[in-house]
Amino acid sequence: MTEKDTYTVTFFQPHPVKIEVHKGRDLLSAAVAAGVYINSSCGGDGVCGRCKVIIKKGEIRTEPSGRISMQEREKGYVLACQTTVHSDVKVEVPAESRLDLDKISEQDAKLLRLKGMYSQAVDVDKGKGVIEEDLFTHSPLATKLYLKLTPPSLTDTVSDLERLYREIRKTRDIPIMQTGLTNIKRLGRLLRESDWEVTVLLGKRNGTVEIVSVEPGDTSEKNYGIALDIGTTTVSGQLVNLNTKEVLGTKATHNKQVSFGSDVITRIVYATESGGLEKLHHAIIDNINAIIQELVKEHNIDLSDINGVMCAGNTTMAHLVLRVDPKFIRREPYVSTANFVPVIRAQEAGIKVNPRGLLSCVPGVSTYVGGDITAGVLACGLNRADKLTMLIDVGTNGEIVLGNREWMVSCAASAGPAFEGSGVKCGMRATAGAIQRVEISKPGKVKVTTIGKAKPRGICGSGYIDCLAELFSKGIIGRNGKFVKGKEFVLVPEKRADVDYDIVITEADIENLKRSKGAIYAAAAILLKKLNLEFKDIEQFYIAGGFGTYLDIDKAVTIGLLPDLERKKFSFIGNSSLVGSREILLSYEAKVEAEKIARKMTYIELSVEPAYMDEYVSALFFPHTDLNRFPSIR
Amino acid sequence: MTEKDTYTVTFFQPHPVKIEVHKGRDLLSAAVAAGVYINSSCGGDGVCGRCKVIIKKGEIRTEPSGRISMQEREKGYVLACQTTVHSDVKVEVPAESRLDLDKISEQDAKLLRLKGMYSQAVDVDKGKGVIEEDLFTHSPLATKLYLKLTPPSLTDTVSDLERLYREIRKTRDIPIMQTGLTNIKRLGRLLRESDWEVTVLLGKRNGTVEIVSVEPGDTSEKNYGIALDIGTTTVSGQLVNLNTKEVLGTKATHNKQVSFGSDVITRIVYATESGGLEKLHHAIIDNINAIIQELVKEHNIDLSDINGVMCAGNTTMAHLVLRVDPKFIRREPYVSTANFVPVIRAQEAGIKVNPRGLLSCVPGVSTYVGGDITAGVLACGLNRADKLTMLIDVGTNGEIVLGNREWMVSCAASAGPAFEGSGVKCGMRATAGAIQRVEISKPGKVKVTTIGKAKPRGICGSGYIDCLAELFSKGIIGRNGKFVKGKEFVLVPEKRADVDYDIVITEADIENLKRSKGAIYAAAAILLKKLNLEFKDIEQFYIAGGFGTYLDIDKAVTIGLLPDLERKKFSFIGNSSLVGSREILLSYEAKVEAEKIARKMTYIELSVEPAYMDEYVSALFFPHTDLNRFPSIR
Repeated sequence: MTEKDTYTVTFFQPHPVKIEVHKGRDLLSAAVAAGVYINSSCGGDGVCGRCKVIIKKGEIRTEPSGRISMQEREKGYVLACQTTVHSDVKVEVPAESRLDLDKISEQDAKLLRLKGMYSQAVDVDKGKGVIEEDLFTHSPLATKLYLKLTPPSLTDTVSDLERLYREIRKTRDIPIMQTGLTNIKRLGRLLRESDWEVTVLLGKRNGTVEIVSVEPGDTSEKNYGIALDIGTTTVSGQLVNLNTKEVLGTKATHNKQVSFGSDVITRIVYATESGGLEKLHHAIIDNINAIIQELVKEHNIDLSDINGVMCAGNTTMAHLVLRVDPKFIRREPYVSTANFVPVIRAQEAGIKVNPRGLLSCVPGVSTYVGGDITAGVLACGLNRADKLTMLIDVGTNGEIVLGNREWMVSCAASAGPAFEGSGVKCGMRATAGAIQRVEISKPGKVKVTTIGKAKPRGICGSGYIDCLAELFSKGIIGRNGKFVKGKEFVLVPEKRADVDYDIVITEADIENLKRSKGAIYAAAAILLKKLNLEFKDIEQFYIAGGFGTYLDIDKAVTIGLLPDLERKKFSFIGNSSLVGSREILLSYEAKVEAEKIARKMTYIELSVEPAYMDEYVSALFFPHTDLNRFPSIR
Repeated sequence: MTEKDTYTVTFFQPHPVKIEVHKGRDLLSAAVAAGVYINSSCGGDGVCGRCKVIIKKGEIRTEPSGRISMQEREKGYVLACQTTVHSDVKVEVPAESRLDLDKISEQDAKLLRLKGMYSQAVDVDKGKGVIEEDLFTHSPLATKLYLKLTPPSLTDTVSDLERLYREIRKTRDIPIMQTGLTNIKRLGRLLRESDWEVTVLLGKRNGTVEIVSVEPGDTSEKNYGIALDIGTTTVSGQLVNLNTKEVLGTKATHNKQVSFGSDVITRIVYATESGGLEKLHHAIIDNINAIIQELVKEHNIDLSDINGVMCAGNTTMAHLVLRVDPKFIRREPYVSTANFVPVIRAQEAGIKVNPRGLLSCVPGVSTYVGGDITAGVLACGLNRADKLTMLIDVGTNGEIVLGNREWMVSCAASAGPAFEGSGVKCGMRATAGAIQRVEISKPGKVKVTTIGKAKPRGICGSGYIDCLAELFSKGIIGRNGKFVKGKEFVLVPEKRADVDYDIVITEADIENLKRSKGAIYAAAAILLKKLNLEFKDIEQFYIAGGFGTYLDIDKAVTIGLLPDLERKKFSFIGNSSLVGSREILLSYEAKVEAEKIARKMTYIELSVEPAYMDEYVSALFFPHTDLNRFPSIR
């Protein structure tokens, strides 16, 4: 019998997904190739221990790992990234390793209270500083114009292209108009076959206007766009009617790059490996295309009528969308390749819409304050505010902006992914089964609430905040985060959980969470200090991000993540990046304002601020070393 | 024995060229594929009878043709376009069917006195109205700029792209700067590997400036461009140092499209056939690439350092270069697809230079007055003249411009290719062996001068003018162009010729030539009449074109091709299209002026001028029906 070269791997999650792989392929990359998304935050180095799978059948070779307990080893657990295939194999992906809620349904979205991420949500908060209706002139990235041209005659022999320009300029003041050869090649025939009645698609492109395409007849009603927010963990997209500004639908999905690392730094490292950049690029483009595909299907819209895409994302994500190497972002002095990216064709990045449709990126401020923050500032109106305003966008990185209509400063703190459920023992993302609310009346008397009311599978960010606040206020942990007795606390015992272990919070978890909240608080404090201001000077406080939407303000103040201000100063603004992205898609004026924001904002690099480390260390207590800063908690 | 599918055709011209063809392929298209250029003016319809070849060996099938005499048939003559291959075949291409001087050597060029076509030539005529030195600011289509960037630091973390923009804007005032994704993808690595010392190539593109490419180190000295004049019959190209304005070399070649038809109308018809447009496009692009290839080889320049190409050509040629369907040009109301073509990448048209290098086309006035005429006007300075000036560019079409700094009108007459040696029995292009001077002391006493002092093979345009003038002034033909006796006149008997027949001019030839000269004269007359002017009002008279460089003014006046003006008013300006093309390549100011010329010039469509037909009929005499118009001849 000759040895086989390729084998079948079947992943059960729990439904089976099969893939043919070459002998010796590792299970993590096989899973990615099969479209099975497995947790991983180290990018396949065998370090994070998050890609555990169970071998049910077949021959494998695996590296021993300290991340697998004796008990687990007996059950067949291995690290997917450290295991290679040497026969047909059946693999179970256990609940805790799954990224099984690859897309968040509208139903779940409501449950998750992902307010800003969904169209209606922001309107609810209108009074709290989000974009006023019609603040910006309606002038979308792509505009359609129906033209009835005068056919040429012996006394009017102007050429086809100039005839088109002439007609457009009758109603539009366009100093610099451009057209590609593709359109010119089609033009003669198209104008005549359509009896000189055509629709031009005009695109705003780097200070000029391009005739993106010419279509026969009147297609002016078919003009749609996509606003995107590309987060390190979640990718959100919104389908917008560019003519009416109506939001038709919103989708969110997990960033498929998670399998290559949970934070931007791990991914940048992964990008430096052979083929890594390519894989990261394709993963995010797959995400984007999947979102667009679902949106157009649901709303019965032709893909070729999506004429403009606006992308807001952190600087690393923007690089990866464009397949630009992000490696210099993590090397001192931390410089990105481009914060202001020219408008290109969406197709050039692999995004499947109208093949001539445009892709624009919201300009970023710096390497660690990207277009998502520019969009967020625009959305919450910080740059137009009379009052001193702080915006905190909590994600895998925590970005902070402070300012008003006169000035703006910003910084970014590497909060780490703990509040997103990564790097903590029973952490998970905010999907069905995640514990999001915790009440402890006494030890052993714990009431948890999960997302989707499902059987508990783990703890998400808001759950950890509640949990920490409860443990601290009930005296189960001290101000230093150490347990008064024991080394962990059981929230849900195995028998009531959807996983075969107790759902616990450990002292190591608390250490991680403390670092995250400390990093964010310290960053905010430093920003203020740099300007000789104090927290009490802040008149408005916006909290944005997927995280922010779950936040119980009182509890966040209790643990010292947020400062102890009058609660009425706080506003949740949800996914302000997506809202800003949409505004910029719909208005060139908003784009110009976004550019002004990005240029005007001063970026402060915390790693070179000597005071930051002191401030950070002081924040590694609950709520803080200096209790005077938290009078309501004291 | 199985029948073969492909056969070898060997063309002898006289050196053998072989090609493998499928059974049934016609010999004309086989010749084109083999790079053997055979005369043809009907585009392969079997009508013009110019593609005669002699079958030396092998099985063919051929359609009978009235164009082949009984005597010729016996010798094996067939029409290449009407003959298909059914075995290995050997074919002789006789001298009269050859386009054997595919490129005109510098040596020949001097002999041909193709003054303006070659760099030095125009300077000779400087006093006569051609472009003054430094009339236009030196600002070429592509500029190089060597930059020493300040490396980023923790206190200067502006992104790579904005760093580049910032440095460029220190010395250049560029409101709208563009860059493609390709450059952005390379930028981070390139800047660091070159220690922040790079050269940017800046391209002027439709009112904006593009960073065309970024190269490591200082490559600013390597910056070359190509100026092109695309004629229906001849394609000329000039290699220019874009930094110094120096002309390094010039090449000319026959337009390979000739095999598909001798004039623009035949080619437009050919373009409507399946694959026709593609073939015409590839033929002209082959020409352009061959010229560029030779120029760079001769001057030891890297193809990738050719950064800009400027193309002047008649409107049909410009369409074919860009692969834009020209079919609407010949349908009433005679409208082209574009007279103002945006700047594109040369690569998009298939031109092999720097893959990111730019291609710009000189704007045209109308369907029948193209960019070559705009360039010619710019070159001779008609648009800047105080004096009333007429420019006649004689080619397969004859274009006429009348005006001064205040106004300009133009028209085009389909002169036909007779003066280019096509459509006349012994006509040939102005290459070695062509009779270009004729003196007749008495019948039978004929002195001819050929180009290159070679054995006579036929008659070119200037030869026909001399011949007509001599025949007329010696009383051998009457004012109506009919022979006093006989039907033809022998210039060179077979025994002294390089062809195996007498070189003659026939009554039918004279009829064709009369129509050509009549069409041009009548067009000029109508232009004047439209403006209530007369020939005597013209203060300067420029003659341009490959034709014009051979012209004996006195004899051209004798036959009534040119008006009977003081001879000192006439100037030859050679290939003014190429000169203008070069100026526009070297100066954005010149480009702006060219655009103004193209917009300002009024085009008069002769086919709708009722007076044109009368004027034309009156001009079908030698020199003219109205002898009062030609006092010096009378």
